[in-house]
Amino acid sequence: MEELKLQTERKTQLIDITDQVRDALNGGRGAALLVYVPHTTAAVTINEKIDPVLVEDLEHAFERVVGDDWGWRHDDKDGPNGPSHGRASVAGSQVLIPLRDGALALGRYQAGPKARSVYVSVLQ
Amino acid sequence: MEELKLQTERKTQLIDITDQVRDALNGGRGAALLVYVPHTTAAVTINEKIDPVLVEDLEHAFERVVGDDWGWRHDDKDGPNGPSHGRASVAGSQVLIPLRDGALALGRYQAGPKARSVYVSVLQ
Amino acid sequence: MEELKLQTERKTQLIDITDQVRDALNGGRGAALLVYVPHTTAAVTINEKIDPVLVEDLEHAFERVVGDDWGWRHDDKDGPNGPSHGRASVAGSQVLIPLRDGALALGRYQAGPKARSVYVSVLQ
Repeated sequence: MEELKLQTERKTQLIDITDQVRDALNGGRGAALLVYVPHTTAAVTINEKIDPVLVEDLEHAFERVVGDDWGWRHDDKDGPNGPSHGRASVAGSQVLIPLRDGALALGRYQAGPKARSVYVSVLQ
Repeated sequence: MEELKLQTERKTQLIDITDQVRDALNGGRGAALLVYVPHTTAAVTINEKIDPVLVEDLEHAFERVVGDDWGWRHDDKDGPNGPSHGRASVAGSQVLIPLRDGALALGRYQAGPKARSVYVSVLQ
Repeated sequence: MEELKLQTERKTQLIDITDQVRDALNGGRGAALLVYVPHTTAAVTINEKIDPVLVEDLEHAFERVVGDDWGWRHDDKDGPNGPSHGRASVAGSQVLIPLRDGALALGRYQAGPKARSVYVSVLQ
């Protein structure tokens, strides 16, 4: 297991870690790569960052999927971060990406919304 | 890794791929089956389709969990598909289903909401 | 594969199963532990329960992420449980937790929101 270290700068910030994840794979052979976030106010998701505006859109969207104004009562030394806990559970603590020929089998940007693939891998 | 090919016909469409996933397993032995979607405007989830009305309810629900009218600015050659990117991150890019005796350990429809099982499997 | 048995008492109830999951691991050696819920009106997530108020906050939040009043039409012998199906797909049917030295590599409560780790593990 490799551990990546990150610094966040603000609430509800999407950070692209694709390169660090590729480096952590480092030629390791297997069927899939597990990327896991051991925090309950953070999460990991797979999306697109070609358009920087989409990254901002997605940050705003997560703040509406789980609203700041929903009457949260939780407060701790990190402050009233209940909404971040909620967003973490919606987005999820891990992604699992299949490996193909020793590399992440991530999709490429693909024009046309209708032709879709699904990858199926057996894990031991 | 097997690759399934699908065609979608409209936005926010749930397609049952259980049979294709079972075919892709094809007697493969292991602890779990990874089903992964390499698109950032599509996702995979496990739910129920016995009642066709529920399938429509769930499609409508995903369009409310992430709303079309949330001031999205992203636009590309597929059109202004920001909401689909958001729904993909909420639903998730993969499911991982334990295998039991070489078959998917999916639940059966079960009356009574109170008795619940959880399956725990170690992966190598 | 181990099977845990649980009883729920009410709708949208978070139940801490960490101890039962640890017991099910039972010294099993591997790279990750899969915790899977074979029900379509239940889900599994990783969050925090140090503050009991946060647990209630999260239950309320899931009832707003997917609303009871969204015009659900689905009804079966368990009653009109469409919203629970929707919440299950938002939260997800499984979590996959990396193992480190034979134990769950869960995070510890950590003050300061800015220093973040990500664990990366290759699965076979």
